[in-house]
Amino acid sequence: NSQLKIFSLNSNNPLAQEIAKEMGVELGKSSVKHFSDGEIQINIEESIRGCDVFIVQSTSAPVNEHLMELLIMVDAVKRASARTVNVVMPYYGYARQDRKAKAREPITAKLVANLLETAGATRVIVLDLHAPQIQGFFDILIDHLMAVPLLSDYFKSKGIPEDELVIVSPDHGGVTRARKMAERLKAPIAIIDKRRPKPNVAEVMNIVGNVEGKVAILIDDIIDTAGTITIGADALRAAGAKEVYACCSHPVLSGPAIERIENSAIKELVVTNTIQLSEEKLSPKIKQLSVAKLMADAISRVYENKSVSTLFD
Amino acid sequence: NSQLKIFSLNSNNPLAQEIAKEMGVELGKSSVKHFSDGEIQINIEESIRGCDVFIVQSTSAPVNEHLMELLIMVDAVKRASARTVNVVMPYYGYARQDRKAKAREPITAKLVANLLETAGATRVIVLDLHAPQIQGFFDILIDHLMAVPLLSDYFKSKGIPEDELVIVSPDHGGVTRARKMAERLKAPIAIIDKRRPKPNVAEVMNIVGNVEGKVAILIDDIIDTAGTITIGADALRAAGAKEVYACCSHPVLSGPAIERIENSAIKELVVTNTIQLSEEKLSPKIKQLSVAKLMADAISRVYENKSVSTLFD
Ligand SMILES: Nc1ncnc2c1ncn2[C@@H]1O[C@H](COP(=O)(O)O)[C@@H](O)[C@H]1O
Ligand SMILES: Nc1ncnc2c1ncn2[C@@H]1O[C@H](COP(=O)(O)O)[C@@H](O)[C@H]1O
Repeated sequence: NSQLKIFSLNSNNPLAQEIAKEMGVELGKSSVKHFSDGEIQINIEESIRGCDVFIVQSTSAPVNEHLMELLIMVDAVKRASARTVNVVMPYYGYARQDRKAKAREPITAKLVANLLETAGATRVIVLDLHAPQIQGFFDILIDHLMAVPLLSDYFKSKGIPEDELVIVSPDHGGVTRARKMAERLKAPIAIIDKRRPKPNVAEVMNIVGNVEGKVAILIDDIIDTAGTITIGADALRAAGAKEVYACCSHPVLSGPAIERIENSAIKELVVTNTIQLSEEKLSPKIKQLSVAKLMADAISRVYENKSVSTLFD
Repeated sequence: NSQLKIFSLNSNNPLAQEIAKEMGVELGKSSVKHFSDGEIQINIEESIRGCDVFIVQSTSAPVNEHLMELLIMVDAVKRASARTVNVVMPYYGYARQDRKAKAREPITAKLVANLLETAGATRVIVLDLHAPQIQGFFDILIDHLMAVPLLSDYFKSKGIPEDELVIVSPDHGGVTRARKMAERLKAPIAIIDKRRPKPNVAEVMNIVGNVEGKVAILIDDIIDTAGTITIGADALRAAGAKEVYACCSHPVLSGPAIERIENSAIKELVVTNTIQLSEEKLSPKIKQLSVAKLMADAISRVYENKSVSTLFD
């Protein structure tokens, strides 16, 4: 049986440490530094010949830096004769550029998939892709994990009576995700339906479903500038919801996000640690749950069943 | 005949403007911006269907940002049905990571070549690659230009008598380049031979060739932190050279470079504009020559002879 090695890059070292701890292994020794001119210099400081290597890296901001770290590391691991090169991306950046919405746009989510394969990745483990179709952008095996169970369990532990709950999708694209959470919490769903009655007239928030007197939980995959989610929370309160929670898998939280959340009707925002939050984003309103166990289980499964599931067999 | 379009990205817009002017065309309309979370957003704002597109971008610092801009632009141009996607890289970043010097190192110069091809580049135009072997990293056509004629002509215009000149390579790797310049200036060459007599003993600078009483011109491809070149200049003065000039194709000039150059025996440092110099690098000792005509000629040649030279024919 070949050996398991887990390496961390610089986007989310605390999560990589936690994953290694869950699995009872030490992180592999490597250094990722910069030359004087800013070029990335990677050294793998232990033999990985014949090993099954897992590289943990979220392509969160600074996304181009983190993506290049990952591609260069994959190249180094491949050239060091690893048996398999598994890329663990808790957060997959550029996922929202997944189609040509306008003429002459790139499809960067597909480009990233191709770049990873070209560098030498043999398998990818991701969590809550912005669109599940992105799985099809890969010709190598891809494992797609979900944070809904983790988020649902947290809300379950609050002991809110089932008949008081309603799970809300902030748009039509997120209904499947909301329904999955609703099933776990045995709650109904509602949908926020944004509509522009005429061009150049402000959007109207219409809530499809009953939220009056209920505890509403908004769920999304990514919360970025937090516009959608905070406006949605206000609309839910206006429609009579007695409390509004929000949750998401990936706390991008850029620009005015923290300020908007703190000034919003949201009582608590529950996120995961796929993206490491900098000090200034640690708002008291934000609760961060760890995906370490989920990722560790996926890595173990991939590693143990490798005879059926890796490309090299 | 299909139409020519030249686009500039953000690393060296002044050079792209100059190239377009040389060729008597306008730069193509595009915008390269960032979303709130730092992801690159590219829009090509005119039709390029069936066109021969040339994208001008140096992968100078911030290298990862500029490389990702380039890859995403190549993806967008390809998907917009361009006939050919030609990448014009006056400076090719990561070129010094061109071999495994130690165990388990990446070969990032090769990775970059593969990434460009994967994104959809059909041809690449570069200038003075750190190692000419990098041409072989590409399976697509690559045109390799040289700055030696430009640099030589500049020194010729100074009217220094031929028998007073000596062209100096700062190391053994650069002798071919020095010889090319020496031929153009009808001058002899010299080589700086660094040697460490014993481990843990300081390097000794030995100059192979006669420099006494001469005007020495040091030539290198890249000047980065300027350690090698400034120490070399001092060694040349100590060996009796009456004046020391230095020149290079790519002024990376990171870290202590400017300070070192200003405090060195170098009378003038002649560079090209493959890399745009920020304000604080515009030392009075530095003379910048333009490669715009050279690049414009290469683009014209590629464009006009496309029936023999593009991959699509
Ligand atoms: N990093 C980003 N930040 C904000 N918007 C983005 C980003 N990447 C892509 N988009 C836009 O988001 C839209 C896709 O989101 P969605 O409609 O929710 O799938 C597209 O119109 C993109 O132009
Ligand atoms: N961006 C960089 N800055 C400084 N040194 C580098 C850089 N990239 C690669 N190197 C090192 O430079 C050496 C290659 O330079 P050379 O021997 O002149 O071809 C290798 O040992 C690399 O480790």
